[in-house]
Amino acid sequence: MAETRRADPASPRTANLASVLRALRAGPLSRTQLAARCGIAKSALPGLLADLAGRGLVRAAGVRAGNGRPSRLVELHGEDAYALALSIEADRLSAVVTDLGGRMVAERAEVVDVAALGLPRCMDELAHLARRVLPGTPVGVAVSVPGLVDSAAAVLRLAPALRWRDAEIAGLMAARLGLPAEAVAVDNDANLGALAEAVDGVGSELFYLSGGTAVGGGLVSGGTILRGARGFAGEVGHIAVDPSGERCSCGRTGCLQTKANLAAVLRAAAAPGDPLHDPALGVGGRVALLKQRVRLGDQRAATAVHELGVALGVALSTVVDVLDPDVVVLGGYFAELGDWLVEPIRVELAARPLGHARIVPSRLGLGAPLRGAAHLAAERLFANPTLVEEASV
Amino acid sequence: MAETRRADPASPRTANLASVLRALRAGPLSRTQLAARCGIAKSALPGLLADLAGRGLVRAAGVRAGNGRPSRLVELHGEDAYALALSIEADRLSAVVTDLGGRMVAERAEVVDVAALGLPRCMDELAHLARRVLPGTPVGVAVSVPGLVDSAAAVLRLAPALRWRDAEIAGLMAARLGLPAEAVAVDNDANLGALAEAVDGVGSELFYLSGGTAVGGGLVSGGTILRGARGFAGEVGHIAVDPSGERCSCGRTGCLQTKANLAAVLRAAAAPGDPLHDPALGVGGRVALLKQRVRLGDQRAATAVHELGVALGVALSTVVDVLDPDVVVLGGYFAELGDWLVEPIRVELAARPLGHARIVPSRLGLGAPLRGAAHLAAERLFANPTLVEEASV
Repeated sequence: MAETRRADPASPRTANLASVLRALRAGPLSRTQLAARCGIAKSALPGLLADLAGRGLVRAAGVRAGNGRPSRLVELHGEDAYALALSIEADRLSAVVTDLGGRMVAERAEVVDVAALGLPRCMDELAHLARRVLPGTPVGVAVSVPGLVDSAAAVLRLAPALRWRDAEIAGLMAARLGLPAEAVAVDNDANLGALAEAVDGVGSELFYLSGGTAVGGGLVSGGTILRGARGFAGEVGHIAVDPSGERCSCGRTGCLQTKANLAAVLRAAAAPGDPLHDPALGVGGRVALLKQRVRLGDQRAATAVHELGVALGVALSTVVDVLDPDVVVLGGYFAELGDWLVEPIRVELAARPLGHARIVPSRLGLGAPLRGAAHLAAERLFANPTLVEEASV
Repeated sequence: MAETRRADPASPRTANLASVLRALRAGPLSRTQLAARCGIAKSALPGLLADLAGRGLVRAAGVRAGNGRPSRLVELHGEDAYALALSIEADRLSAVVTDLGGRMVAERAEVVDVAALGLPRCMDELAHLARRVLPGTPVGVAVSVPGLVDSAAAVLRLAPALRWRDAEIAGLMAARLGLPAEAVAVDNDANLGALAEAVDGVGSELFYLSGGTAVGGGLVSGGTILRGARGFAGEVGHIAVDPSGERCSCGRTGCLQTKANLAAVLRAAAAPGDPLHDPALGVGGRVALLKQRVRLGDQRAATAVHELGVALGVALSTVVDVLDPDVVVLGGYFAELGDWLVEPIRVELAARPLGHARIVPSRLGLGAPLRGAAHLAAERLFANPTLVEEASV
């Protein structure tokens, strides 16, 4: 590829191109609106728009009638600018390709035992999956992982569910896909779930609580993931919720983690040997069975889910005090059980002096982290539109 | 004042002026450095710098020798651009004026019983204090208050220590000083303490824990106060730290608030009737006496302070998990006791899977919120340098 047309990402012109492209991410705009949103002189717009159109990233979008003259609209194009989202979970690998507007182009998933496969072979499999869905070179890649991510270094520091430590996911994936390392981002699944919910319009100061084999959390403030100093922000698994509870792996007693991980809830919901504990059902199957039991009035299952709600409510009352989100989204398997969790959580929060955040189950369900990864992958182009070459005339 | 020279704050030119002025806030820069930091073409700089110099906001700062040609430096001037910081505490009102570089120009404080005085008379007193320290019209004002602030509405929602509710501080103060309402910002004392510590260079992902008649907290991420959806973020007083502890006003048991407010610590440190409880000593006097006792080996006082440290450590372990700060600053009266608090807090955090934040006592002490308010007050000019008129030639 010719590099001559690729501008310095820090140049004022690139910053203006990026500003225009970002403004269009929420939908079509007139030139007057664009100039105002971007703080760019209207006289500079034609040149910028011609540049972006030459790269295939924007196009005319018809005319909007108004009070005065009808105004010509501009919208994102970018059907050939692909964002690649990848996800590693304990029992599955997934790949999704979207276009610049976030529309799904292709997707594929594979059931594997990631811990048994090990890091290098898992990366091989995931790259193989990616190549099968990608129609061309992606503008950016983001990988969702269930663990603590040092986002500055793009390294997965610790993922107990995968039995990985200090895994250099970005570098490994970039090498396999023939991309520069900076083209691949890595982030925690709950962070990406939070981003997806915020992009979906659920809230702008948002806390995403993720239920699975572990309990995780992600924060978005003003559209941006808050990662903290090392990238570990959002951890809520060790908030004390039950002084008389189980001993936690951290050494304390009654951490949220001990009450809210899926296995613990299933143990509370049914006796040993019950089909609810059958690993062959997979996570989705066991959660569906639990839902069915609660719906049919199984008292033990209903009590287990109610107690989960109370534990989540106690932990969330601290989270709400510290972060003051406008909304808490229940993600992962908590989303499936939302009908029975929201009420006990609300009761706990209502008793707090400050607790007035909305509590909503995720509408994106288990797919939220992958949606967030697609958004993050596209970010790279929105930050520097010159990554896509102008078409030669 | 002529308004003709006051540019539209959203105009590209104003944005560039603001960008240049902000870049200089950290110290003198060469033109090449300025152009790079601001993403502005070097050819546009002379015009922008002439404009800012005409407003008295920047000036030449000599020459720096380098490898190649020596480079001419530019620095903030703004000795006549005043930021006014005001603070309301239960027992005192304070006013500080700084110049654009944050240097103190004048200060004054007054001991009053704010709750007894009531809101309108307190605002009168504070405005009176402000007029006595102000050498001219301030570019911005910020008021520090001990309570929950709806920062968007600039309203103090609840301040139990002052017995105020829904107090429209910004409007009341602006009217008294003859300023537009938007010239006056209001914020929580712990938020402003956090901002002051971040500006002071203590950390960029920073949690500030403030001890006083209540326990408060403030968060700064990437140089900006995180306020949450309603402005209430940072509240940590109701984190459970002792299941067998006292009943809290919130209805639960063993909240941090019940263990860490100054009165509770003093009660634990000395029998009733002890001089440690003498209100005539003021907060500062009682804390100084407590310090002296611990230093002299008073076992009861030492145990009380150690137990305070353990309670803070338990609460901070949750805060560190949720926010992942690089540093936790102990502010308010906790700063005074830092020598004995840091160690038990570190022990609690060291036991956590993720807890590796630094713990430091505030070097700014009780003055931190006022320092933060001065910084916030100046923000208004840094966002729109055209608020200061160009000198007529």
